[in-house]
Amino acid sequence: MRKLKLEELGRITVEEYHTIPKMPVVVVLDNIRSAVNVGSVFRTADAFAIEKIIICGISATPPNREISKTAIGATESVLWEYIEDISEAILLLKSEGYTIAGIEQTDHSIKLGSVVPDVGKIAVIFGNEVDGISDEILHELNLCIEIPQYGTKHSLNVSVCAGIVLWELTKMRL
Amino acid sequence: MRKLKLEELGRITVEEYHTIPKMPVVVVLDNIRSAVNVGSVFRTADAFAIEKIIICGISATPPNREISKTAIGATESVLWEYIEDISEAILLLKSEGYTIAGIEQTDHSIKLGSVVPDVGKIAVIFGNEVDGISDEILHELNLCIEIPQYGTKHSLNVSVCAGIVLWELTKMRL
Repeated sequence: MRKLKLEELGRITVEEYHTIPKMPVVVVLDNIRSAVNVGSVFRTADAFAIEKIIICGISATPPNREISKTAIGATESVLWEYIEDISEAILLLKSEGYTIAGIEQTDHSIKLGSVVPDVGKIAVIFGNEVDGISDEILHELNLCIEIPQYGTKHSLNVSVCAGIVLWELTKMRL
Repeated sequence: MRKLKLEELGRITVEEYHTIPKMPVVVVLDNIRSAVNVGSVFRTADAFAIEKIIICGISATPPNREISKTAIGATESVLWEYIEDISEAILLLKSEGYTIAGIEQTDHSIKLGSVVPDVGKIAVIFGNEVDGISDEILHELNLCIEIPQYGTKHSLNVSVCAGIVLWELTKMRL
């Protein structure tokens, strides 16, 4: 067994990336406090060829030094836009046919990996590191998804959480 | 739909955590450069009730301020030990019946989510952020697992990568 060299990984160029079919998944980042987390989500979105990232509220946007540190170039490949008001972003996504899924622990959340329905185009919303998704937009969501957890915290870093959710959505569509 | 309150999440105490059955998964962190990543893996390991973390090489160990920042207390719940030489850790794990899986892109890697066999007790090794798993230990592994990626980088943050792998292993056993 030997490790693959960089040129054996099948990495595509930024130009090629813009032309390949994407997973019909939009990531919405609302009020993310840490630019490091925003950058890490860009890196993951590139890995799984996610359609777009919509950045809302107080979340940092490129160009930003902390985003660059963790995105390692993925801000060049992954499409993104900034929409300050998340309600506006949700309206736009609904008009384009996306199902809107909050990633949140609620009294009606679906457990990731159990019965996540095949919903076609989906937008997944990740909220603030401390407060999660804003209460004010809960009624605008079509569903909530939570990652089952068994420990003392019931809390994951938001970029780890996004990695798990995007992996699971990617896998469903392979 | 409403968000669950902290006391509704079913979080268990550190004392209860020590008594619940764990996933038969050991995480091995070898030469992890960033203590922030070590802490984040602790937080994820707590969420999925992983058996133990073995920390090797230059990786930071608790108590450490950067680990604490991202582990948010999970160093109290999750069992861990430091074994400087990873080969020694692998020998120990093999003697205890663990299958040793490197998380690495190699010419014989199994794709996560496709055909990962039910191997019983498993130890998953995550290597350095830049260099990955050391070439010197590749022949000591029973298998390698890689996360399929489609973008320009073919590279994930190590704590995101650990989150995805631990989620997938947890899910297989539910």
